[in-house]
Amino acid sequence: MPRARLRDLGLSTGFLPTGRWNAITDVPGVAVGYATVIRDEPAIIRSGVTAIWPRREGIWSDAVFAGVHSFNGNGEMTGLAWLAEQGILAAPIGITNTFSVGCVRDAISAFAIREGAPQMFHLPVAAETYDGWLSRSETFPITAEHVFAALDSAASGPLAEGNVGGGTGMICHEFKGGTGTASRIATSAGENFTVGALVQANYGAREMLRVDGVPVGREIGPSLVPSHRPPARDTGSIIVILATDAPLLPIQCQRLARRAATGLAWVGGFGANGSGDIFLAFSTANHVREGEPCTDVRMLAPDRMTPLFQAAAEATEEAILNALTGAETMTGRDGCIAHALPLDALASVMRRYRPV
Amino acid sequence: MPRARLRDLGLSTGFLPTGRWNAITDVPGVAVGYATVIRDEPAIIRSGVTAIWPRREGIWSDAVFAGVHSFNGNGEMTGLAWLAEQGILAAPIGITNTFSVGCVRDAISAFAIREGAPQMFHLPVAAETYDGWLSRSETFPITAEHVFAALDSAASGPLAEGNVGGGTGMICHEFKGGTGTASRIATSAGENFTVGALVQANYGAREMLRVDGVPVGREIGPSLVPSHRPPARDTGSIIVILATDAPLLPIQCQRLARRAATGLAWVGGFGANGSGDIFLAFSTANHVREGEPCTDVRMLAPDRMTPLFQAAAEATEEAILNALTGAETMTGRDGCIAHALPLDALASVMRRYRPV
Amino acid sequence: MPRARLRDLGLSTGFLPTGRWNAITDVPGVAVGYATVIRDEPAIIRSGVTAIWPRREGIWSDAVFAGVHSFNGNGEMTGLAWLAEQGILAAPIGITNTFSVGCVRDAISAFAIREGAPQMFHLPVAAETYDGWLSRSETFPITAEHVFAALDSAASGPLAEGNVGGGTGMICHEFKGGTGTASRIATSAGENFTVGALVQANYGAREMLRVDGVPVGREIGPSLVPSHRPPARDTGSIIVILATDAPLLPIQCQRLARRAATGLAWVGGFGANGSGDIFLAFSTANHVREGEPCTDVRMLAPDRMTPLFQAAAEATEEAILNALTGAETMTGRDGCIAHALPLDALASVMRRYRPV
Amino acid sequence: MPRARLRDLGLSTGFLPTGRWNAITDVPGVAVGYATVIRDEPAIIRSGVTAIWPRREGIWSDAVFAGVHSFNGNGEMTGLAWLAEQGILAAPIGITNTFSVGCVRDAISAFAIREGAPQMFHLPVAAETYDGWLSRSETFPITAEHVFAALDSAASGPLAEGNVGGGTGMICHEFKGGTGTASRIATSAGENFTVGALVQANYGAREMLRVDGVPVGREIGPSLVPSHRPPARDTGSIIVILATDAPLLPIQCQRLARRAATGLAWVGGFGANGSGDIFLAFSTANHVREGEPCTDVRMLAPDRMTPLFQAAAEATEEAILNALTGAETMTGRDGCIAHALPLDALASVMRRYRPV
Repeated sequence: MPRARLRDLGLSTGFLPTGRWNAITDVPGVAVGYATVIRDEPAIIRSGVTAIWPRREGIWSDAVFAGVHSFNGNGEMTGLAWLAEQGILAAPIGITNTFSVGCVRDAISAFAIREGAPQMFHLPVAAETYDGWLSRSETFPITAEHVFAALDSAASGPLAEGNVGGGTGMICHEFKGGTGTASRIATSAGENFTVGALVQANYGAREMLRVDGVPVGREIGPSLVPSHRPPARDTGSIIVILATDAPLLPIQCQRLARRAATGLAWVGGFGANGSGDIFLAFSTANHVREGEPCTDVRMLAPDRMTPLFQAAAEATEEAILNALTGAETMTGRDGCIAHALPLDALASVMRRYRPV
Repeated sequence: MPRARLRDLGLSTGFLPTGRWNAITDVPGVAVGYATVIRDEPAIIRSGVTAIWPRREGIWSDAVFAGVHSFNGNGEMTGLAWLAEQGILAAPIGITNTFSVGCVRDAISAFAIREGAPQMFHLPVAAETYDGWLSRSETFPITAEHVFAALDSAASGPLAEGNVGGGTGMICHEFKGGTGTASRIATSAGENFTVGALVQANYGAREMLRVDGVPVGREIGPSLVPSHRPPARDTGSIIVILATDAPLLPIQCQRLARRAATGLAWVGGFGANGSGDIFLAFSTANHVREGEPCTDVRMLAPDRMTPLFQAAAEATEEAILNALTGAETMTGRDGCIAHALPLDALASVMRRYRPV
Repeated sequence: MPRARLRDLGLSTGFLPTGRWNAITDVPGVAVGYATVIRDEPAIIRSGVTAIWPRREGIWSDAVFAGVHSFNGNGEMTGLAWLAEQGILAAPIGITNTFSVGCVRDAISAFAIREGAPQMFHLPVAAETYDGWLSRSETFPITAEHVFAALDSAASGPLAEGNVGGGTGMICHEFKGGTGTASRIATSAGENFTVGALVQANYGAREMLRVDGVPVGREIGPSLVPSHRPPARDTGSIIVILATDAPLLPIQCQRLARRAATGLAWVGGFGANGSGDIFLAFSTANHVREGEPCTDVRMLAPDRMTPLFQAAAEATEEAILNALTGAETMTGRDGCIAHALPLDALASVMRRYRPV
Repeated sequence: MPRARLRDLGLSTGFLPTGRWNAITDVPGVAVGYATVIRDEPAIIRSGVTAIWPRREGIWSDAVFAGVHSFNGNGEMTGLAWLAEQGILAAPIGITNTFSVGCVRDAISAFAIREGAPQMFHLPVAAETYDGWLSRSETFPITAEHVFAALDSAASGPLAEGNVGGGTGMICHEFKGGTGTASRIATSAGENFTVGALVQANYGAREMLRVDGVPVGREIGPSLVPSHRPPARDTGSIIVILATDAPLLPIQCQRLARRAATGLAWVGGFGANGSGDIFLAFSTANHVREGEPCTDVRMLAPDRMTPLFQAAAEATEEAILNALTGAETMTGRDGCIAHALPLDALASVMRRYRPV
């Protein structure tokens, strides 16, 4: 059975409608690019870089508002002090493996210089999850060129999922994990807003995995499909990037980011100790322009936020599931195999729990 | 069908075993008391006070470590600055209605003075959820005497649930809500630790309600049981108090508190805008004694925390469900009726989703 | 020598010009009222309530943005979860003694109801500092009527300082402390903005006190003027309220609030353990109106904030000094005397340190 | 007049005695190393790396407690999510220029691997301040080898100050800035504890500079010594690392870190918008050992913290002043000259403000 998105399997979760591509790129202006590094020499590498542009055009001098929530901070996201202070994002975001997060961070600065960004001073956001069970990432395989390639290749429209970009070597609920995306349309204040999620999913115990409430992970136990068990089962992480075109202030982006914890919980993640579960939300609706002394901005009323919160939780949930249904079985270092979530078994379990 | 606890209905959620009473009082030393105020004159009141003693004996001079997470801070919990600064709790906690949280806060100070607490300076923790759909709480019905009564009556052992104490007038997932409790045993570092939860549950949309993943709320729609719909459906709150005997530092209590968001998500709460979802966790294992210049404390290793996180999420989930199955239908102000979750319908829905 | 403001003594600090009244009320719309409770029967009380209206008119349905910094959270300020979540202030602020903060909090709710505030749900901000060395505040002397009186009497224009309102029984740098205020004009983005501070100053060791860098406290040692020494010298607190008409978002108000720590440092406060040093800043420039689904707001560019930061630090510094020069010697419970900072000695020390 | 430390000039600030070397290395086990990169080809570089080992021996498997305060987060410090979550530091800290912080971060990981650290998963702390007025740091001059050299050369004992390590190209109060250090002995709970500070000082307006309260910067204006004026005068930063052997928990380290803002204020820093003022404090007294399921730790009583707070503020203040008196005039890119604080003028101003 070929890999597919959750909805292509006739499955879905949540209440709200999706955007056109059911992807973070449904938020106008958002673009995503990947550099995927899969090679066996000189060391086995299963890694990469994911680049997310809040605006593909002009971000260096036309910033967006943003906010962060660290649900379990056993991970790295650079730029946190700046985001907490200013709530502003003026560069693309990079996601990669744990050992390369510094490289990606500096390379985004270098890219800004290359592009002639008007400001010399950058505090880029680069985040990571750990792929060391499949990849010899301690050899520091990611270079600035990979980062430039991911940034340069970014596009809107449908996105590849699973073993791509920073998500290449990830493991999730003891199945092969990776990159996933989804989106939701939320109606509030008489307008339709889009909330999109992109995740790099690398966390979780198999028996906790649920799909629309059905205990899929308990049913597809290790006797059915072998588990790739890391030394400490709770080691892993998930990075969630949320984008919206709803007009949110920085403090409201922080609120939106917190709802990734809800979507994560619905799939079965609870922030195990070793998990770096860090969530960033940005809103493209406002424009903070370099050199402008005072800016007119729009704010959705706080009491109109609820549909957006639901959308953020639902999009996160489905993005993780898309990473699982999209990722293919991968063999990595030391002969380790991370098995994909078997789609036929998934379908069969979902049928068994269908209400009578 | 008489009201019951979830497990008395043959239902359960999660993986971990419960403590003896499946209550926050399974944590040795923790005691809970209620003052329940139900009266129709001079105004219809459906309110009360819940008192939680981290240690029934000696708390004034033998403090516990504690930490807080505000998942959606549309509510009040006094003492937040102190808890963030010191991570120490040296007084019982009170929970009540929104209008009375100041009264409860000051009354805990007064109680400390009455008991001869050695310190004159207190920063008590009092929290609230809003019961104004059933109760004329804007008449400020709670007095210091109610607080003293709740504090004085506190005991260990099994606890009343549903329409008691601060939870008396609450509504949850558009059914009658209230006070609930549960506990879990988590094995870590070769020891068994107890994590107990007590909730005052007053949040949520009906269609989001899930029991062990089954969409109970969607199935028991308003056509089956009328909904008590507040003017803004997302107005409500949940306070979660977590207790454990695992030796946690303040920073670890903060981490534990964050997992209440996971248990809340499993039931169907995502922190709607109007919801004051504030969680406090304390650990009784260490003793911070008044006047002691230096204290020896024990710390569970950070990488042994995962079972406790799971326990906190599971206990929170089941405590909410116990509030729902325990609460009885209540008529309040202006003839408003909050219908209890019908236990027969619940059983029937759960059967329909049983795997074939 | 009669009590006076710092500038009436020919002294000043900082660089920026003051507003018309050199008071928080220089920010248009801000009003301040006091209830001062000084009595000897049935118990000696030296206490009160200070009320600060961010807008004297319409605040219940026309909120301001706000943010908080807890420099040393050994104190109470209610409403913290709400302010962190929403960054909105829709009610007057109250400041009082430690034991009465709950009373003041609930009374602001009651006042809102009395005034017919359109929203039933309030999360008022009430803060405190400890006056128990001069006042038998453990008898809970403050009532809702005191709060109403402070709220009702609020006015713009010049303000009383020293032993008034919530600051009545305070001690600062081991001299008589109390309420103080000051303001600064900051030019940024081609506009003049006002930043006003109001403090309730009740902290500090004498030898740390500096006026414009001159070690006044070290020079006026206890041999010159007796010290009122609390049992633990570091017990005390300072609440700082900052107001501005610059268009700041909530996250920018949080930034402004942090600069109160700078002004505090300049006078000699470093957040001793027992000190509840909690700072709140609000901006009146934007209007968050009840029921409005989307709001147009103005934001001063982040990189134009520096003059406001300096203004906040300078206004805080001078407000504390005004509390010290304005407060008169007070005799309280158990015959305790808190001596005022002697203005002639102050003048003499300042002259001795004048550059040659 | 040769460059000197503040105390060598007969000047001092504060009340508490210094440690033996008046340096962060007075805390037993702490070691500091530098790599200084000064070259004119192929581009003018004035930069470097400072490495701080919390314990020179065993840090990879014997962690210390730590906490952070971001006073003005316009800067980068990696590892923030981890420090907020766990309060644990298990690697040396690096400080460098803005463009190289990612490189330093990854290089610390690489160094850990080289040293055979037992854990593969690292979240190193690397921080930065901007040296782009003197140095072409946008050419990314720092390499992993520089980081290894700084780490390898680390030693206890007296430290070089001024134009060394990460501080090589810094500017402070419009004089030449750089690296500085100082320490204090605080007596609490019957014991003597050491608090040491190391700063990388790169912030501030000249007219704000004060030495022991004396307005040195106002007196030594640009007419006396030319100012190196960056395009925006408020652009800069200060990183403060505080070390202590007092037994502090993570939450107490966070408290200590906040007092760097006090010391900074005393010198004249108020966190201008462009300044990344991020402070980290660690305590070497406890040992969090890899693989230990439960750890016995000591905690200084919260109410014994005040002397440590004063020590942290005083050490920070003097460390900044030592950076200023230690740094020599430097010519950098585009012929820019950053003039050292003239020591004879400093002495003369200090004499003029001596009390009569």
